Amino acid sequence: MARKTPPPGPARRLIRPLVQKLHAYVPGEQPKIKGLIKLNTNENPYPPSPKVLAAIRAAVDDRLRLYPNPTAQPLREKLAKLHRCAPGNIIVGNGSDELLALATRAFVEPHTGAGRSSRSTVQYFTPSYSLYPVLAAIQGARANAVGLTPAFELPALELLRRSKEWDFDAALTFVTTPNAPTGTAFPTATLDALCRAQRGVVVLDEAYVDFAREHALKLALKHPHVLVARTFSKAYALCFQRVGYFVGHPALIAALDKVCDSYNVNGLGQVAALATLEDLPYYRAGFRRIQETRARLGEALRELGFLVRPSQANFILVRPPGLPARVWLEKLRERKILVRWFSYPEVREYLRITIGTDAEADALLRAVRAILRA
Amino acid sequence: MARKTPPPGPARRLIRPLVQKLHAYVPGEQPKIKGLIKLNTNENPYPPSPKVLAAIRAAVDDRLRLYPNPTAQPLREKLAKLHRCAPGNIIVGNGSDELLALATRAFVEPHTGAGRSSRSTVQYFTPSYSLYPVLAAIQGARANAVGLTPAFELPALELLRRSKEWDFDAALTFVTTPNAPTGTAFPTATLDALCRAQRGVVVLDEAYVDFAREHALKLALKHPHVLVARTFSKAYALCFQRVGYFVGHPALIAALDKVCDSYNVNGLGQVAALATLEDLPYYRAGFRRIQETRARLGEALRELGFLVRPSQANFILVRPPGLPARVWLEKLRERKILVRWFSYPEVREYLRITIGTDAEADALLRAVRAILRA
Repeated sequence: MARKTPPPGPARRLIRPLVQKLHAYVPGEQPKIKGLIKLNTNENPYPPSPKVLAAIRAAVDDRLRLYPNPTAQPLREKLAKLHRCAPGNIIVGNGSDELLALATRAFVEPHTGAGRSSRSTVQYFTPSYSLYPVLAAIQGARANAVGLTPAFELPALELLRRSKEWDFDAALTFVTTPNAPTGTAFPTATLDALCRAQRGVVVLDEAYVDFAREHALKLALKHPHVLVARTFSKAYALCFQRVGYFVGHPALIAALDKVCDSYNVNGLGQVAALATLEDLPYYRAGFRRIQETRARLGEALRELGFLVRPSQANFILVRPPGLPARVWLEKLRERKILVRWFSYPEVREYLRITIGTDAEADALLRAVRAILRA
Repeated sequence: MARKTPPPGPARRLIRPLVQKLHAYVPGEQPKIKGLIKLNTNENPYPPSPKVLAAIRAAVDDRLRLYPNPTAQPLREKLAKLHRCAPGNIIVGNGSDELLALATRAFVEPHTGAGRSSRSTVQYFTPSYSLYPVLAAIQGARANAVGLTPAFELPALELLRRSKEWDFDAALTFVTTPNAPTGTAFPTATLDALCRAQRGVVVLDEAYVDFAREHALKLALKHPHVLVARTFSKAYALCFQRVGYFVGHPALIAALDKVCDSYNVNGLGQVAALATLEDLPYYRAGFRRIQETRARLGEALRELGFLVRPSQANFILVRPPGLPARVWLEKLRERKILVRWFSYPEVREYLRITIGTDAEADALLRAVRAILRA
């Protein structure tokens, strides 16, 4: 039975005013066009290890009828060994996005009344992950976005102190490092100083850290108010199966666990993540290849007149010459190459290009040369 | 580096008072003991169809590195055909539990100030799914639990109107049908009358409906404020992969979509659900077997002195003779049979027993006879 559309009035009355006003997060395009080179959503160009694929296939049996481990206990135990902490320091999520949302719900009060309230503040630097303001809006919290420096570095602590914009009491501060879409990695010493100055919870989102020179995991094991987010999606080629995790103080982890759906991590995702941790050398070889391609592609684009920002992630932020970035986006798309453009003022002259295989980098360079010649 | 436990004070200061007070939902035990007969979490005793297993295995390849379809579009299209509605009538969740939580966030205001506020009320009959009060507490909403009749039927509408307990303006009302842990299915005509009387959103949770004589899906396509929840977990033997969905008015579905994490449904879960819908006769044969085992087990337990409640689900609620139910739980566990006991006053004299295979039913009956003889 096809439904008749009733007047929108009654349906609108049923939905929270806060939700009616929301604009949903827009994920990068997942096109169905064949032969497209997809350099827009920071996926790994290399597949999971053959051992991981075999482990998943071997688990596709009678067990699918059973609930998965509700707390991903075996995976948390293995991650705890890897990071030299306890399973109680770890919560696994349906991708790290779920955990970022849980952090907002566990640590940030909805904003009631007028004025600035630190307890209702989600804070982050900009440009960064476009999900943060969406999470703040869903929670009915205040989003405090403070600009990075023109070179996309963290502003000096002294500058933050003087500016009055930054809130050292914000209930929750998100820092993506290496940052997206800029590729900038922030030194651990700088992050440590920032964490020491913050009195609310700080989440260091290290989704891209495997492509960087250093990581800040120790800060989550040193400070009771710091969480580090990791994911199997990008570096470990498991976007499809949605497995991310937080490392941090057991009291924060327990709070997140309370507001989490039970059985939140699907079983084959748990199997895949466990098998991944058994085959890390395979993935590390891939990280090196991506770093090499990143260097080569950056150099070649620089020679073609692009401004190439230094990157420690599996993507580069580049300012193309001549035409506006948005026109480049369209022209590359016409040549079946998909990259990403963001409308934020700080980066609207830039394109974000995921590092693919060497062949994909060559195809991109051919397309760029053709556009420059046209 | 093993972390030193810091004083709990700072960590507590970081967590919302509401979250500190929460008691997390306790899922049924997933024991690791070998040879245990698991009749405690309403899983299907029969595995997914061989075609479904083959489809999942065939999808374990290079695609795992890519994000899954963010809105489960192909699955929503196929479900829309099955239910004769549009993809816009459907949202897919990481299990239906995620969708129940999203409904709370999209339709129920956190409670501020004192007194009864319908806009901040999550309402449900009791005994029912123990997740509902947890969802209300997480949202900071008022939980309004109203008792079923002594026979675990819905109270007559007239009675609800006179009682003053029931809130016809509650922002969100959950009705599980067939109900858990009682097994009672509510007639569609009765549910229709209740829905007509409610002015807030009503979620009819049909997690167990495939084992029942009728379903109420048409109510979600008739009333703009009614959602029907379905899941692939129990009837379709896919607990492991977390796929559930809501059917309802596009305006409600769009609101849920706004507060939902992007990429919330893992890719192999989507593949599994799609393949399931291609092989429904396999599953329907299983439903008949479970209904037959349910009838036979109920009859046999009745003869052994149990009070057996009528059930239209894949479990039965039974009041054992002689010893308290909680003692029966322990004695069955000693015999490697796991069933479920709930501490709610209305059902604390009962055990909930999942319908397994015929061999599992026979093993249960042998254990029961041994306990009765002892």
